[in-house]
Amino acid sequence: MKIIGIDPGSRFCGYGVVEIEGSTLTHLDNGVIVPGAKRELAQRLVYIAEALEERLHEFRPDVAAVEETFVHKYAKSALVLGQARGAAIVTLARAGLEVNEYSPTKIKQAVVGYGRAEKEQVQHMVKILLNLPEVPEENAADALAVAICHGHGANVPMKMGSR
Amino acid sequence: MKIIGIDPGSRFCGYGVVEIEGSTLTHLDNGVIVPGAKRELAQRLVYIAEALEERLHEFRPDVAAVEETFVHKYAKSALVLGQARGAAIVTLARAGLEVNEYSPTKIKQAVVGYGRAEKEQVQHMVKILLNLPEVPEENAADALAVAICHGHGANVPMKMGSR
Repeated sequence: MKIIGIDPGSRFCGYGVVEIEGSTLTHLDNGVIVPGAKRELAQRLVYIAEALEERLHEFRPDVAAVEETFVHKYAKSALVLGQARGAAIVTLARAGLEVNEYSPTKIKQAVVGYGRAEKEQVQHMVKILLNLPEVPEENAADALAVAICHGHGANVPMKMGSR
Repeated sequence: MKIIGIDPGSRFCGYGVVEIEGSTLTHLDNGVIVPGAKRELAQRLVYIAEALEERLHEFRPDVAAVEETFVHKYAKSALVLGQARGAAIVTLARAGLEVNEYSPTKIKQAVVGYGRAEKEQVQHMVKILLNLPEVPEENAADALAVAICHGHGANVPMKMGSR
């Protein structure tokens, strides 16, 4: 089963693709989509959607996962984030993928085994579990974490894998 | 020139299609897309996107217009609204439409001639300008208003039209 995780932010959209075969978790790809700050809203959203579709075409994931967004302090930031999130989720769903949402606590439990773990611990465990040479960029690491969390939910005991 | 205006809300997405030929403004369609509260987020966004695409296929608008969203008091509402807005805007833009944003003040000026007009005045003028039998539902009226605003920006003096 291939899982694409996404972490849509207002300026960056992280993504990560992992595969689970039996009990082996393998890293396929991760990265950050940067639509750029200067374009118009519609063009930024199209940029995110098209970049995600490229990843879908390349990796053909079976399912998608996204972190439930915590509530922002500032309504304006929440609106901007919501727009990116809406564009990303609708793109995945229209490509036929089930989009599963996971709370930050659930993701931390799945990756670190502790729901109140620090961000750095999560990133470190993403690196370890996926046998990566280094910790990915923040949004990409978060995207991989939610993908791992979905894999974990499939009740597959995870161990390190390699590409 | 055919213009589709949209008013994406967290629970309802209003739309309105008008045509400007010379100085005549004609109403083509308006309505409200109701994705339903019970489905999952991704399915609500897909519902909005597919319903909008149906309208695009039916009316083949040349351009789209949307109201700039005022900043919500509550960040959670802003996030939910942003998601619907992002899904709607990315759908229009990926269909090849330029998506123009207009401030509420600009829309009121275009429709009522006064930037601080009350909502009821805007709705009333939408009815008059488009020669409608009655005031459309609120989100649909707002969507028509922003479409009219875009037509106005094309420096076309508007008068009543009929289908």
